[in-house]
Amino acid sequence: MSRLVIVGTVAFDAIETPFGKTDKILGGAATYIGLATSYFHVDAALVSVVGSDFPQEYLDLLKSRNLDISALEVIENGKTFFWSGLYQNDLNSRITRETQLNVLADFKPQVPSEYRDAEILVLGNLHPGIQLEVIQQMSVKPELIILDTMNFWMEHTWYQLIEVIAQVDVITINDEEARQLTKEYSLVEAARKIQEMGPRFVVIKKGEHGALLFHKEQIFFAPALPLKEVFDPTGAGDTFAGGFAGYLAKSEKYTFENMKNAVIYGSNLASFCVEKFGTERMQTLTSKEVQQRLYQFKNLTQFEIELT
Amino acid sequence: MSRLVIVGTVAFDAIETPFGKTDKILGGAATYIGLATSYFHVDAALVSVVGSDFPQEYLDLLKSRNLDISALEVIENGKTFFWSGLYQNDLNSRITRETQLNVLADFKPQVPSEYRDAEILVLGNLHPGIQLEVIQQMSVKPELIILDTMNFWMEHTWYQLIEVIAQVDVITINDEEARQLTKEYSLVEAARKIQEMGPRFVVIKKGEHGALLFHKEQIFFAPALPLKEVFDPTGAGDTFAGGFAGYLAKSEKYTFENMKNAVIYGSNLASFCVEKFGTERMQTLTSKEVQQRLYQFKNLTQFEIELT
Repeated sequence: MSRLVIVGTVAFDAIETPFGKTDKILGGAATYIGLATSYFHVDAALVSVVGSDFPQEYLDLLKSRNLDISALEVIENGKTFFWSGLYQNDLNSRITRETQLNVLADFKPQVPSEYRDAEILVLGNLHPGIQLEVIQQMSVKPELIILDTMNFWMEHTWYQLIEVIAQVDVITINDEEARQLTKEYSLVEAARKIQEMGPRFVVIKKGEHGALLFHKEQIFFAPALPLKEVFDPTGAGDTFAGGFAGYLAKSEKYTFENMKNAVIYGSNLASFCVEKFGTERMQTLTSKEVQQRLYQFKNLTQFEIELT
Repeated sequence: MSRLVIVGTVAFDAIETPFGKTDKILGGAATYIGLATSYFHVDAALVSVVGSDFPQEYLDLLKSRNLDISALEVIENGKTFFWSGLYQNDLNSRITRETQLNVLADFKPQVPSEYRDAEILVLGNLHPGIQLEVIQQMSVKPELIILDTMNFWMEHTWYQLIEVIAQVDVITINDEEARQLTKEYSLVEAARKIQEMGPRFVVIKKGEHGALLFHKEQIFFAPALPLKEVFDPTGAGDTFAGGFAGYLAKSEKYTFENMKNAVIYGSNLASFCVEKFGTERMQTLTSKEVQQRLYQFKNLTQFEIELT
């Protein structure tokens, strides 16, 4: 079992979808990644920051999932990072109503000393400067560094982002961002260019259209499970990354063949995440449910044609 | 080996894409469907109409692929159906510049007498009134009727379209059209409603995002092969339908399990169609190329996770 370090936001989210709205609820990239990895009963530490307005109940929840939160700093009299967003109609695009950086503005990550030689480092969506700092704090180069990022950092911190990308093994990025990063419309071409920038493995997330894994000339595709209803897409990409990382940590094989399974597990967990608001569905997820859905993924994609 | 009757347009297309433009070239739904079925060396008759401006060379091409064109009527002094269209940037949406119905306006289909008991009837995109007439001309109810249609007929001939839909076994339709037909955004819900309208099998085509096959509570998904470059999407949907129908005609099993393979073959052939203008790529397609791509489809989608 590999150990994981997860850096990213731990946040309050206020979400509105066509199906309803929430007050401030638990959110953040590191939260979703952590909850997803915890499904695999692996040993993971969260590196993040919150304010003293962050409820003990949420801290207890993270601890109850066996996440090490000793490096989840609580800033006295500080306010937790807050994001508020709206999804309209098709849920494919979201509008950010408000972002308050709060304690994140001055965040200095501190990887716990007993995790500085962890095998897997997951850089959740966050300022690339912080992601770089975490890489530098590792005493042993991790066997696998996984990066998730977004267009915001391409627009505001291009050079630091390129520096992070050069140092990671796997990048997960959505289709529009892959195009923006490479100026290539074809995702095949985009993935090729991104590999030249550093990562040996490129995962392009296409939301309801699934995810593609690229490595050299090889491609694997995992569909999203067709659902009757997507309730709230918040955290789906982070949950995908967490499922991906958690499966790899559990199975300890960082090959293309095994990453196929990791992509399926990422899609599997993400398909639950979107069924309820925020982290709600992930909190009640059982192993039996995940196994049943794995069976659905098999039925959805596996076929028997004789090759001649 | 089942026999096929294919009804649809045989046409001139003038196409412009970001990669170039063509004069009037061979096109039409029945043409693409016919060329795709011919890959399987099945016995198929085209039912359609052209004008005397239609070159002998194109007729010879269809004949050379063993397509029975005795019911491809040539109207003396008539002009062949003409469509002109433009694809911009992302190739996902197309603009129709011109449509000339010409000889299609008065088309009276005549299924050849020796094909009136064919096992498979493919109703390519065309006026639903003509599709109904062809169904009625069959002396024996076909074992499988496959319908392809589009939004134009929903907007202009709703009641006739509903009547056709009620009589078919399989419908192939794109995602936006499925939503328009059912007023359901969720494709799972849309497919359920379409099944209630008649077809036991519903194929929803999502272009570069693949195709979904629905039957009762079962779902199968075939991705589109990720290509470096899509040159011209014209005819991809028809080629998909032709590959689907041709595979079923060859294998003679109209089960959900076998339709999974048919969907893969449809996606396989469509992935070639888009590589060149019009029917160009389909004319040179070899069995070896298709088998190689089948291998790529397997690599793209098949994974090995133990179910526990």
